[in-house]
Amino acid sequence: MNAVEKSLPEVRKHPATGRPQPEDLDAAPPAEARSTDRWLLRKVSAFLGAPPIEFAIRGGARVCNTSEPLARVSFASRAHLLAVLADPWMRFGDAYSDGNVTVEGDLVEVLETVYRASATAEKPSWLRRAAELAQHRPHVNTLAGSRDNIHHHYDIGNPFYSLWLGSTMAYTCAYYPTPSATLDEAQTAKMHHVCRKLRLRAGESVVEAGCGWGTLALHMARHYGVRVRAFNISHEQVAYARERAAREGLAGQVEYVEDDYRNIGGHYDAFVSVGMLEHVGAKNYPTLGGIARRCLGSNGRGLIHSIGRNHPARLQPWIEKRIFPGAYPPALSEMSQIFEPWDLSVLDVENLRLHYAQTLRHWLALYEGAREQVRAMFDEKFVRMWRLYLAGSVAAFSTGTLQLFQVVFATADNNDIPWTRAHLYAS
Amino acid sequence: MNAVEKSLPEVRKHPATGRPQPEDLDAAPPAEARSTDRWLLRKVSAFLGAPPIEFAIRGGARVCNTSEPLARVSFASRAHLLAVLADPWMRFGDAYSDGNVTVEGDLVEVLETVYRASATAEKPSWLRRAAELAQHRPHVNTLAGSRDNIHHHYDIGNPFYSLWLGSTMAYTCAYYPTPSATLDEAQTAKMHHVCRKLRLRAGESVVEAGCGWGTLALHMARHYGVRVRAFNISHEQVAYARERAAREGLAGQVEYVEDDYRNIGGHYDAFVSVGMLEHVGAKNYPTLGGIARRCLGSNGRGLIHSIGRNHPARLQPWIEKRIFPGAYPPALSEMSQIFEPWDLSVLDVENLRLHYAQTLRHWLALYEGAREQVRAMFDEKFVRMWRLYLAGSVAAFSTGTLQLFQVVFATADNNDIPWTRAHLYAS
Repeated sequence: MNAVEKSLPEVRKHPATGRPQPEDLDAAPPAEARSTDRWLLRKVSAFLGAPPIEFAIRGGARVCNTSEPLARVSFASRAHLLAVLADPWMRFGDAYSDGNVTVEGDLVEVLETVYRASATAEKPSWLRRAAELAQHRPHVNTLAGSRDNIHHHYDIGNPFYSLWLGSTMAYTCAYYPTPSATLDEAQTAKMHHVCRKLRLRAGESVVEAGCGWGTLALHMARHYGVRVRAFNISHEQVAYARERAAREGLAGQVEYVEDDYRNIGGHYDAFVSVGMLEHVGAKNYPTLGGIARRCLGSNGRGLIHSIGRNHPARLQPWIEKRIFPGAYPPALSEMSQIFEPWDLSVLDVENLRLHYAQTLRHWLALYEGAREQVRAMFDEKFVRMWRLYLAGSVAAFSTGTLQLFQVVFATADNNDIPWTRAHLYAS
Repeated sequence: MNAVEKSLPEVRKHPATGRPQPEDLDAAPPAEARSTDRWLLRKVSAFLGAPPIEFAIRGGARVCNTSEPLARVSFASRAHLLAVLADPWMRFGDAYSDGNVTVEGDLVEVLETVYRASATAEKPSWLRRAAELAQHRPHVNTLAGSRDNIHHHYDIGNPFYSLWLGSTMAYTCAYYPTPSATLDEAQTAKMHHVCRKLRLRAGESVVEAGCGWGTLALHMARHYGVRVRAFNISHEQVAYARERAAREGLAGQVEYVEDDYRNIGGHYDAFVSVGMLEHVGAKNYPTLGGIARRCLGSNGRGLIHSIGRNHPARLQPWIEKRIFPGAYPPALSEMSQIFEPWDLSVLDVENLRLHYAQTLRHWLALYEGAREQVRAMFDEKFVRMWRLYLAGSVAAFSTGTLQLFQVVFATADNNDIPWTRAHLYAS
């Protein structure tokens, strides 16, 4: 059982009396109601491909297709179960956040089982229709729309993120030279991996589209002697990054610009974007590629690092609505629309999906360790919402539902490119 | 000056008298005709972006925009020049093969200059229209169509190919650990690179789609202890490969099947295809991917190695008609249609374009050294046609017009994939 779940109340109590509320009493409901509940719970199990998980109405019916279930998923009431069934991809997350669904057992393992099972399960048409109806209009990535979307996620407080991102404050997939590397080691290794892929040389200039808290820009300046202009539309992140650059004596080499990638001007030796593409929106990819092309001269090269997919599909709708408005992880066919209209040459694609699962495991562990602080900053609902997001993300990468692509590209006629990739692995 | 061109007659002689034919005499044509010829030659130069090349009518008008031209391109007569202008992408190749266009200077360098210049030149609309009109119906890759297409290229004689492919008889891009590696070293290194990318383990089974003269299949069996079923529809190549496997005592481990990739059955640990995709045709990519998916179990992985492009475009029409009927080098967006319909996960893409330029330089040098044997096997027209093909291919890869993609993929839920790519570079 997950340590956190253990400490969470499985039974809701009346706020005044402290006594269990009616739907949580273990008194047996009428036999007919139990039979209906069991039928519904079997529907849930079947929808998920009959995983080894017990499904239950809290204090009521239980359904399980194995004597040793991996975990138990409990709904607070039949009404909550019905609500989830009507729109599972959206309402499961909300019900979990509200405590109306609880999970006894390892949350990541449960979600991995669910991801694996649902990838192969036959979806009954009524559930598929319900899921389709639940598709809502995505948040638009216009200049103003992007600002709103980014504000929603990244401006909820630097202190919050600093609780669980590790010392680098890098909020993107790390690179673990070995699986036993620590989070901070892996984030530092990721930055070196990116710089080596770009073959940065002292004195060169780099433009960064979407710089988070500014860590990579500082790393490039400090270790590779380059000048960096780094763009970001998150006010909180830019403020943090500027303060950090000044404190570390790198403000002369690194300029943070609070502006949209679409307003990037100037000429640079390299273009880099780590973890921004997810927020760009597929219809803007040719625009992004055009900006990269315009920025780069004949020796130009670039790197784009992004969450992706094996085939085009929208983001899990609950994540898209509650966590990342406007986000979209592209398939490679979609990413190619960054490069192909501009004759940019893709030199190297590396899929780091297992590294992102590992990064997220590290973030989740730090997050769980800091949950009391998170609860004090926000509330229990927020704690559960972000736990589900992080655990679900581990599961999405570990089961192959999401990918992580690092794409190195160059202008078409650039022959000053590495002969092999051996230099990336030289010690 | 290219050694070969030096030895070729610049002036066509009457077959009986041995005297120069009228259009090659250096007697000055009338001034008016010269002026028209110069106007036409300036058109050619402008169309190609005014490269530092002299254009001439043999024994007549000359046009050059520099005092130190890189080379001279001569047309046998105004009629030949007009024919080339009417359909340059097709007729230049034919005129060169027939000796009605000659090149004094390094042919590769001339073609590189032309490729680079034409990439940036403004195409006048009448020339663009002419080029479009020249688009002919491509050869169809049905089962029978593919057999005809492959026969056209690969069944022209194993002795011919053995003159210039080196000892490995590998007719695909090599991998040069360093630029100074020899052709044979690089072909062997390529096969190891492919096997390492597939992480072949002793006792595993591999299916190969399009096996050429069978070299990779033998290499996998000998060095990695795997069993291989290798498919090819070229009768000559399969006969050669079977004889070789028997001679090398590997017939028990390697089975060569004279059949189309669409008829591959069975289950294997790995799927590999090196240099076949160019002949598959983009509309058949989902079929190819479906076959790979069906062949592979949950630990499945595969590799596809193919000539490609930065963006979708048809093959140079002369190459497509005279050399490679039915061939089409895809952009990555097109290649992704192999993988995306089947949820296959792209793990690694490596672009080896400079390695293919180097491979082709080595082939061209061997080819030039064997031109007397080639002439004896065929005729002078064939010698010139294949020279142009090889030299033009060097130029296409060295200028970034063509790419070479090695794509590693795996089934979506396969977590038994390499943690990093460092093992590819361990000595």
